[in-house]
Amino acid sequence: MTQLPWLALSIERGSKTPIFEQICTGIRESVVSGDLKEGTKMPPTRVFATEIGVSRSTVITAYEQLVAEGYLTSLRGSGYTVCALGDVELSSGLSRIVALPEQEETRPPIPFATGLPDMRLFPHRQWAKAVARVCRTNPQAMLVGGSSFGNFELRKAIASHLAEWRGIDASAHQIIITAGSMDALEICMQSVIDKGDVIGMENPGYPPLHHFAQAQGLVPTYMNIDDEGAQLPSGRILPDLVVLTPSHQYPLGGAMTPNRRVDFIKWANAHDAWIIEDDYDSEFRYAGRPIPALAGFDQLSRTIYVGSFSKIFSNALRLGYIVVPEGLLERFRNTMARFGQKASYMPQQALAEFMSTGEFYRHLRRVRRSYGERRKYLLERLHREFSQYGFFRDHQAGMQIVFHLDDGVRDKDIARLAQERGIVTRPLTSTYANAEGEGEDGLMLGFCGYSEEELGQALDILKEIFEGLSSA
Amino acid sequence: MTQLPWLALSIERGSKTPIFEQICTGIRESVVSGDLKEGTKMPPTRVFATEIGVSRSTVITAYEQLVAEGYLTSLRGSGYTVCALGDVELSSGLSRIVALPEQEETRPPIPFATGLPDMRLFPHRQWAKAVARVCRTNPQAMLVGGSSFGNFELRKAIASHLAEWRGIDASAHQIIITAGSMDALEICMQSVIDKGDVIGMENPGYPPLHHFAQAQGLVPTYMNIDDEGAQLPSGRILPDLVVLTPSHQYPLGGAMTPNRRVDFIKWANAHDAWIIEDDYDSEFRYAGRPIPALAGFDQLSRTIYVGSFSKIFSNALRLGYIVVPEGLLERFRNTMARFGQKASYMPQQALAEFMSTGEFYRHLRRVRRSYGERRKYLLERLHREFSQYGFFRDHQAGMQIVFHLDDGVRDKDIARLAQERGIVTRPLTSTYANAEGEGEDGLMLGFCGYSEEELGQALDILKEIFEGLSSA
Repeated sequence: MTQLPWLALSIERGSKTPIFEQICTGIRESVVSGDLKEGTKMPPTRVFATEIGVSRSTVITAYEQLVAEGYLTSLRGSGYTVCALGDVELSSGLSRIVALPEQEETRPPIPFATGLPDMRLFPHRQWAKAVARVCRTNPQAMLVGGSSFGNFELRKAIASHLAEWRGIDASAHQIIITAGSMDALEICMQSVIDKGDVIGMENPGYPPLHHFAQAQGLVPTYMNIDDEGAQLPSGRILPDLVVLTPSHQYPLGGAMTPNRRVDFIKWANAHDAWIIEDDYDSEFRYAGRPIPALAGFDQLSRTIYVGSFSKIFSNALRLGYIVVPEGLLERFRNTMARFGQKASYMPQQALAEFMSTGEFYRHLRRVRRSYGERRKYLLERLHREFSQYGFFRDHQAGMQIVFHLDDGVRDKDIARLAQERGIVTRPLTSTYANAEGEGEDGLMLGFCGYSEEELGQALDILKEIFEGLSSA
Repeated sequence: MTQLPWLALSIERGSKTPIFEQICTGIRESVVSGDLKEGTKMPPTRVFATEIGVSRSTVITAYEQLVAEGYLTSLRGSGYTVCALGDVELSSGLSRIVALPEQEETRPPIPFATGLPDMRLFPHRQWAKAVARVCRTNPQAMLVGGSSFGNFELRKAIASHLAEWRGIDASAHQIIITAGSMDALEICMQSVIDKGDVIGMENPGYPPLHHFAQAQGLVPTYMNIDDEGAQLPSGRILPDLVVLTPSHQYPLGGAMTPNRRVDFIKWANAHDAWIIEDDYDSEFRYAGRPIPALAGFDQLSRTIYVGSFSKIFSNALRLGYIVVPEGLLERFRNTMARFGQKASYMPQQALAEFMSTGEFYRHLRRVRRSYGERRKYLLERLHREFSQYGFFRDHQAGMQIVFHLDDGVRDKDIARLAQERGIVTRPLTSTYANAEGEGEDGLMLGFCGYSEEELGQALDILKEIFEGLSSA
């Protein structure tokens, strides 16, 4: 237990409460008790870290948390200062604030959590401008005016986005705005299949989809992945619907070959089955030409296309979309009439303007560059320092990389050790639908949400974990 | 076609556009063109109504709509005056409001569809101001900064709302922002019960809840409604969780008596069961004192409170909330960590400001007055012209009234005939969980979303349907 003379701050190392949270609690209590007065400069992160014997990033995390909570302010170049308490409640309210460990929830994403954009790079002011413009010119458009398919301006913007970026020639009338991509998948299933129908899913694949299909009473079948992509359904029970990630297989990362695509479309035509193309992160390719969507290839005859904005906006907007083949429009219209739109209407008009003014694309180009650099950094270090533990395949795309482990090391063991050390390495085996223990061992390493410094620190930890394992 | 010399206002009686909207459009255009200058006094509602040959309430609705939109102001005792246009944009914005490209899908709600607020009365400009303020002062707050429980400012605003309006003493830390009330119910179930557990639901009740419980693999039991509210669970299989609407039973409309409330809380304590209080439309009481929430009564020991903003904002924001008893916080935290927030983050900060600046309450008072008048109009006509077909109980609350049918008339027959005539009368029997054909016959008549004129036309049609049935 470390006791700082000037702060009633005690750090218990054995505790379940993470150290940065203990620091937060200590500082909060000192602010509330008045030991830390308004305007007091906090010790520099480096100094403080040394004094209490923790890493500097732990102190930064704690300070930033307290900035977010309004206990501290941070001015560029002048460190952290204690705020006026203002309307922070001192009596009962506060005892609750201190007692209830809410702070763990507001911390930024931890490397190598997957699928998360870096919202620190987001052009918040440009987005605010787009929203403010709607407020000024067309306030109603935030709350009313859409059909059950969503805001028409946004649907038009998505249609031209898809034409230009994904090779899909769809009219705005075929586009449905959804509350993210899981909502989109749910709407598709409600529209084209029934309880008891057979659904084909990739294996390994996206676990929430596996769970959802089961919860919906669908019969799951699985398609293994080979060098060309998902394998065609075979066997006695053929699916009525398959869900594919042809541009960038989740989680392995490869693109489906043109031949395999043709085979899937032919198969679907022959068996009167439907294909859902989950194009979850096609925005991010770092080299080569973009791979057109299967739905464009298929001319939308058998393929229902699902896209999402969560790779750009994080979960803040909760918006995704479906491109519905003409022949299915009536069914989707019935689904939407029956269950209603689950998407928030408010961001839709602003997003349409954000896209049509080009801000969306400026941001996309900017983050693609940043993410590309982070990815390069990660791959170089993996290549240089981790090749004795496994290997990776470079698909030049996406927001994460799978580091395949050599025999003898279990990804779940690494994940457990990583968690103890405060980092996240999602085990590849958790994306297999099979019974426990099957599937290839690997670590899914998300790289978009973290600076090179943050990635570097996490890689140092990961290296120590591997070294610990091999010396054990 | 009536042409006012001083206003380029033409009323087409045969048009599909309601007359009050035609008035709004005419006045809007005159303000924008400059024909109606800032400070101009509008003709008194009575005079204007006579001049163009419509009812006074139609004119009032139109004027109030334009007040909400910021075209007119209303000063007590001195009528309506034209506002300064300020930053309303004159060209494209306005034409959009008038001519939406997707008429077939954007048609307004049809009487007597239930549970829908009248978004024509919504103060769009005030809402836009709250949003614009966030854009200006704290753009990040639209996309980042919340915990998995949501934006903290909004949670504080909800806590003080609940303290003042619903008698619930909860800290902001106990409040979770959800994507509407069904999402809230889903989160509650994921947190406190498991597949195979028993859920007690009111009968009649909210059909989506019945369906959802079944889809979740829960074992349903039903509680009938008597004069005191839902009856206590009895029988061999006792629920682990009951869902109640104690302030205003859905769909019948009565409030649960204090005795029954005490019984439920005692029952839950004795059986280690949980109560979800679905307080879906408690904002709307038209007489008498507000009925405090069960959760306040219970001091949140056994009761999980669920509220929603959809009765104010329609579905546009998709926001609801849960108040979690202290003892359950850990479980809810795990649920949110596991499944993530489904609520759109973007509106949350703006909504917090909309509430804390009082705009929310000004709007609530205004619509309560309008809805109260619409309700009065509906009940008077039901009483005067429909008593030979059935009866209603006046609970002085809510957004709809149940018109119970005399023996021999089936509500589903009326509903079918109504649909053929272009109106909506949801059959009460559809809210019973029992097999087809059981339950009391009645018509659920929503009255909030429609002007007296619109209600009047729909009542004329309904009357013809009843007359047709009795003469047949």
